[in-house]
Amino acid sequence: MIEILPEEIDRQMDWISSISDKEGKGTTRLLYSESWVKAQNSLKELFEKDGMKVEFDEVGNMFATIEGSESPETIIASGSHVDTVVDGGRLDGQLGIMAAYMAMKALVDEYGQPKKSLRIVSMAEEEGSRFPYAFWGSKNIFGIAKKEDVENISDNKEVPFETAMTEAGFGYLTGAPRFNNFDAFIELHIEQGNFLENSGKKVGIVNAIVGQKRYTVKLNGEANHAGTTLMKYRKDVVESYARIVTEVIDKANEIGDPLVVTFGHAEVTPNVVNVVPGEIEFSIDTRHTDQKALNEFAEYIEKVIQKHADAKGIQAELNLWMDEQPVPMDQEIVSVLENVCDQNGLNYQVMHSGAGHDSQIFAPRVPTAMIFVPSIKGISHNPEEHTEAVDIVQGVQALAEALKELAY
Amino acid sequence: MIEILPEEIDRQMDWISSISDKEGKGTTRLLYSESWVKAQNSLKELFEKDGMKVEFDEVGNMFATIEGSESPETIIASGSHVDTVVDGGRLDGQLGIMAAYMAMKALVDEYGQPKKSLRIVSMAEEEGSRFPYAFWGSKNIFGIAKKEDVENISDNKEVPFETAMTEAGFGYLTGAPRFNNFDAFIELHIEQGNFLENSGKKVGIVNAIVGQKRYTVKLNGEANHAGTTLMKYRKDVVESYARIVTEVIDKANEIGDPLVVTFGHAEVTPNVVNVVPGEIEFSIDTRHTDQKALNEFAEYIEKVIQKHADAKGIQAELNLWMDEQPVPMDQEIVSVLENVCDQNGLNYQVMHSGAGHDSQIFAPRVPTAMIFVPSIKGISHNPEEHTEAVDIVQGVQALAEALKELAY
Repeated sequence: MIEILPEEIDRQMDWISSISDKEGKGTTRLLYSESWVKAQNSLKELFEKDGMKVEFDEVGNMFATIEGSESPETIIASGSHVDTVVDGGRLDGQLGIMAAYMAMKALVDEYGQPKKSLRIVSMAEEEGSRFPYAFWGSKNIFGIAKKEDVENISDNKEVPFETAMTEAGFGYLTGAPRFNNFDAFIELHIEQGNFLENSGKKVGIVNAIVGQKRYTVKLNGEANHAGTTLMKYRKDVVESYARIVTEVIDKANEIGDPLVVTFGHAEVTPNVVNVVPGEIEFSIDTRHTDQKALNEFAEYIEKVIQKHADAKGIQAELNLWMDEQPVPMDQEIVSVLENVCDQNGLNYQVMHSGAGHDSQIFAPRVPTAMIFVPSIKGISHNPEEHTEAVDIVQGVQALAEALKELAY
Repeated sequence: MIEILPEEIDRQMDWISSISDKEGKGTTRLLYSESWVKAQNSLKELFEKDGMKVEFDEVGNMFATIEGSESPETIIASGSHVDTVVDGGRLDGQLGIMAAYMAMKALVDEYGQPKKSLRIVSMAEEEGSRFPYAFWGSKNIFGIAKKEDVENISDNKEVPFETAMTEAGFGYLTGAPRFNNFDAFIELHIEQGNFLENSGKKVGIVNAIVGQKRYTVKLNGEANHAGTTLMKYRKDVVESYARIVTEVIDKANEIGDPLVVTFGHAEVTPNVVNVVPGEIEFSIDTRHTDQKALNEFAEYIEKVIQKHADAKGIQAELNLWMDEQPVPMDQEIVSVLENVCDQNGLNYQVMHSGAGHDSQIFAPRVPTAMIFVPSIKGISHNPEEHTEAVDIVQGVQALAEALKELAY
């Protein structure tokens, strides 16, 4: 089996994660920022030193290629996004780039030139953290990002998207995409959950990324004096909210994994101790790997909300503002990953991803799979995000073995 | 029956409610503000013009007395508080002062000097709206306000309580209270609820003011990624909150009137769509006219919270920061009120008060009762607070007839 040393993982991650807009633990590297430009250029230098051919597309996605000896036009790729959230960790995104680099370097060191081309992809943006737009990198690879979605948006310092982009030396995609031909793409990423940690597994082979629906719900009842309004005369929106949350979570538990539902956000009005609440706005986020199951649960949620609103003469307004389909991974690559894990005694588990990733943009277009490595306590998007290098090794080995299987 | 004209009510309320810190509808008259000083002085002038003897105590409570012919030391009083909340209405508090004036003036016009003394009480403060201290007026009448509770508090413009008080020409109570001898006190007030409006009654005879308990509850669970954390691994505080609210409100409905419970305030942390909420702080306000029933319900609430916290491994922290006892009104005065309503064909209902009033400070110390007049839609503490004068008339008549019964 390809040898990957924990010290090497730490060395690479210490180096790349230190290229940050902020000092201290973790990484802040927003799209087109100074440290973003520095990271892409530093990676270019590193990859070129190893003899790879480095190219950028118009928006700033970077591709580093080790040409194949027999079928150089066949591209076996791996990578992830180079941007982070504000006060992000040292792993989210950038680990996938460095893992691809370490795996490919180890392969070439061990086996020489591949038959098919190996390609590292360092994508411009995934997080939507600087500007209100996510997947700018992967969507541009496939030519599906729309100019009109970003031309009027700015960051929180009022810097327009276009200004940031051109100052970083990039621009809009012109003509057809040039880097959208992949015969295989494997993204390695931290799990950002606690499933692997809880189950003691070191490698997660992702077979699907969940679909998700997000709602904003407004209930309009009647604000009243908390002392002088008898219970029977109330239109208490917090009561209705509580009944909805309870009933929907009970149903989700009954249906079971992988369905999840979260009521993460709530604003009560007037939000005063001695006033019966007259208005509430709250969020619902629900996810499932199966489209039919997700649709059925969303229908159930909508019915429950209407039922409780009607029972109290409360007005309910639902806004379904996100409706992403589940994305199955390529079953052939998933099988390759299972096989190499089995053959090399790697401690793996086939699982789904509850979070979105660049791979969900790739998967409907090219054969795609993902490898998860554990996240300590599932903490992510936080400087405390961490995984011990010894718990990352098996994931990088699985990646290397799969790339070997596919490209040699 | 004593005649009270709706036009006279409107004339008096238009006049007094226009003395405000702000232009426009409603009244803003904060303790010791310019308009507060003007209101007390204008009332003094009005009452003196009618031959009453007007006195202030040290803190600014005002007492206007029509001396009795036979037993002048026996005081039959009526009144309310002269302050309002910010952007308050034209009735809350001040109607009780003007109703006392109109009733006593009508009595003297019709029947001449009373046998016992009649006294209007215009109290300095009840709302706790400028400074974080309520019942400053009534508590000083009985010498139970504590200097240490106000000497370090300021308003939201950083004006210390003491500075505001001395600039208005007042100070702390010195020596024993001088105006605490009442043989009867009747406070007329708007209901601030919709019970009278819904039942079509014009006069509420209050037999008790509810006791109330207020809690702040903090639940500490675990914030987690909304996609990657399976339902079974969650410590979702919004789920626990929803179960608590549902169960407590179900129980309150089962127990029935006059028990009320309100979850008016809630703050979720981090309050983000795609994060399982890790913390919530929420309020509980529960009220009942019976101490035992209130205590039992509070015990029930505490158990329900603990049960749901334990079920999820969530930490619950309860802070009972208000615990006011129910205050029964004087049954003799209540009977007098019932009798005069019966005799004069007034459309009344014996009821409880779900809100706190100056009368709850009086009632444990002197024979006290309250009269409610309707509030349109129960709206109060709002410039839209309103009651048509025709719907106030019967309340003022009931007050006048009861004062006649007690003082003549």
